[in-house]
Amino acid sequence: MSFVYDIPTKVFFGEGQIENLGAQLSVYGSRVLLVYGGGSIKKTGVYDKIVAQIKGAGLELYELSGIEPNPKVESVRRGIEICKKNKIDVCLAAGGGSAMDASKFIAAGACSDEDIWTIVSKKIPVTKALPIVTVLTISATGSEMDPTAVLSNMQTNEKSPMSSPLFFPKASFCDPTFTYSVGANQTACGSADILSHLMEVYFNRNQNLFMLDRCMEGMMKTVIKYAPLAMHEPDNYEARANLMWTSSWAINGFTSGCNKAPWSCHPVEHQLSAYYDITHGLGLAIVTPRWMRYVLANDDEQGSRAQKFYEFGVNVFGIDPSTGKNQAAEMAVEKVEEFFYSKLGLKKSLSEIGIGREHFSDMAKKAAECGGGDCVNGWQKLYAADIEKIYEACLN
Amino acid sequence: MSFVYDIPTKVFFGEGQIENLGAQLSVYGSRVLLVYGGGSIKKTGVYDKIVAQIKGAGLELYELSGIEPNPKVESVRRGIEICKKNKIDVCLAAGGGSAMDASKFIAAGACSDEDIWTIVSKKIPVTKALPIVTVLTISATGSEMDPTAVLSNMQTNEKSPMSSPLFFPKASFCDPTFTYSVGANQTACGSADILSHLMEVYFNRNQNLFMLDRCMEGMMKTVIKYAPLAMHEPDNYEARANLMWTSSWAINGFTSGCNKAPWSCHPVEHQLSAYYDITHGLGLAIVTPRWMRYVLANDDEQGSRAQKFYEFGVNVFGIDPSTGKNQAAEMAVEKVEEFFYSKLGLKKSLSEIGIGREHFSDMAKKAAECGGGDCVNGWQKLYAADIEKIYEACLN
Repeated sequence: MSFVYDIPTKVFFGEGQIENLGAQLSVYGSRVLLVYGGGSIKKTGVYDKIVAQIKGAGLELYELSGIEPNPKVESVRRGIEICKKNKIDVCLAAGGGSAMDASKFIAAGACSDEDIWTIVSKKIPVTKALPIVTVLTISATGSEMDPTAVLSNMQTNEKSPMSSPLFFPKASFCDPTFTYSVGANQTACGSADILSHLMEVYFNRNQNLFMLDRCMEGMMKTVIKYAPLAMHEPDNYEARANLMWTSSWAINGFTSGCNKAPWSCHPVEHQLSAYYDITHGLGLAIVTPRWMRYVLANDDEQGSRAQKFYEFGVNVFGIDPSTGKNQAAEMAVEKVEEFFYSKLGLKKSLSEIGIGREHFSDMAKKAAECGGGDCVNGWQKLYAADIEKIYEACLN
Repeated sequence: MSFVYDIPTKVFFGEGQIENLGAQLSVYGSRVLLVYGGGSIKKTGVYDKIVAQIKGAGLELYELSGIEPNPKVESVRRGIEICKKNKIDVCLAAGGGSAMDASKFIAAGACSDEDIWTIVSKKIPVTKALPIVTVLTISATGSEMDPTAVLSNMQTNEKSPMSSPLFFPKASFCDPTFTYSVGANQTACGSADILSHLMEVYFNRNQNLFMLDRCMEGMMKTVIKYAPLAMHEPDNYEARANLMWTSSWAINGFTSGCNKAPWSCHPVEHQLSAYYDITHGLGLAIVTPRWMRYVLANDDEQGSRAQKFYEFGVNVFGIDPSTGKNQAAEMAVEKVEEFFYSKLGLKKSLSEIGIGREHFSDMAKKAAECGGGDCVNGWQKLYAADIEKIYEACLN
């Protein structure tokens, strides 16, 4: 039961904090690469605010636009080239997880002679990277305050995560009003991602601190309360602010504490995104309840999974504590389904989004092996055969 | 509703983490001033472990022992002199709030030509300080992960807090086993301090994020569950670990978020410590329930204090939510009294610790003016007359 806590990211949270961007960037140099996606930041005015800050601080602006959802290795290579050619000092991501993750790989690739896919696929440790600053416009991945990024290679159907202390942004600008324009479905998918990050740590076989479990429950309640509200009232500051700050804390390392066991649903979902390029949060919303039912059906003799689901149901969803353990556990799964499919209105099966079983066998094998072994080594060990059964359960 | 989050302290948490101390200190230089109290670290073996790390890393050790509870300006001046004379590179505090706070002032004074009491009393901003590293041996003040320190001057009966980003320790070593030797009464006083830090932020007039309120409730539950356990089973790792990590998070700035309103009970209590040198946590345990009753008796028209006490009672102490608002608020105060005086066994009045009303008038005036105005500007404004009434209520 020990760990090292080290989250160096400075967060400027709240409306108007963007006014501090120019000064923060100046700390790291004068040549800034702005990395963003399809141009929504131009429609919302965030782009103009960023450019005004960069110009106002007398910095040089370079741009890489067109970062796609589940960022691709080709885009990252383009960014690395710009950095090397123009001696970029700092990578500035504006957007959600895709822009931020791409920036992390660009920041690492800019300081290396290796191709970035070689670094990722061979897990070569990152020893040097440009400083990263982010402007968050979607609450979801938590990449604004964490040391991890995920890169996709569609040619090999691979989606690989990588972590490095150098991937922590130096500063992140989190203005809830920048997420007012996020549509209902994307708000739902992002919120599913946040909830999943919390559940991945909460449901784990390692012992953790009571204090952290209680904080995670508070954060899960926050997502459940505010995600539907943000969908229906996109300009609700309270809802957007609560979701935004929870997205950062769900995955920055605080909640995991001494509980470093591998996650379960994320690796299972990553193969769905890798093969079908679906939105990560949507995939998680489909996978998670099936995973819950699967591990519950394969509970240990003490019924420790049912016990934890019981606590989750009581403390997060307000299920009456006098309900029997097994019944409450079952009700907790139903509450999660109700949240994802009714409250958030997300699609409830792979069939509904046009995915069939043709790649299940390959996907299950890749998911099982993604950690370097032969299983996803989380709360319950999931071998390829287990994962394939979970995919099957996701079909309808 | 905006704030800047910036907590740069790296925390080595758990049994055995002290093995990393030498390497961490080396980052900051070669000449280390070890600051500690009455020698309990020698009895427990923590001193030997620290010295082994310093010697093992080839560093030079200087020592300042005898830091008293509520650290005094004279001790700090001695430390500053040692630093200046020996060109100390890093201040290493070993102990609780007293050793850590003294180290913070020593670190600042070592880089200034001004006398430290001049800096504190005139609130001269700290622009330079030696790096600070801590080894925590009592869970209480949270000074191991916060930017604040409190200095006492018994000649003028003053106890003054000071904050600076430079007061964040660079690294803190938090090994729960180092607190096994903390006696029941000190464990109780430290736990009262932790709970008070959480209540100060939780009960405030500013709006805060739902998510942070829920996290604070989780942390308060943690103190309530584990403080009595740690008193009765001093070697209970789970209890000591939960208290230790909660002590750091109760006051490091995370829970306050956008809620920066001044605290209430701390300034009222500080005068008790300043005049009578009592243990801060004991003073808080006496003051807090009286403050609760006082603000409840002076509630606004909407009954917003009763409402918040109701939520506190329901979410932290498990009071039945169907209880009426005012009744639940009253019950919540009783629960706090029960916790401090029955569960923790702390003295319940000033009379019991030999304090009378002779200085109440002066103390109340000083408390009211400590923020630079004429009142403690917290949830309810407390003028000198209000504070004197609270002291009176503390008598019996």
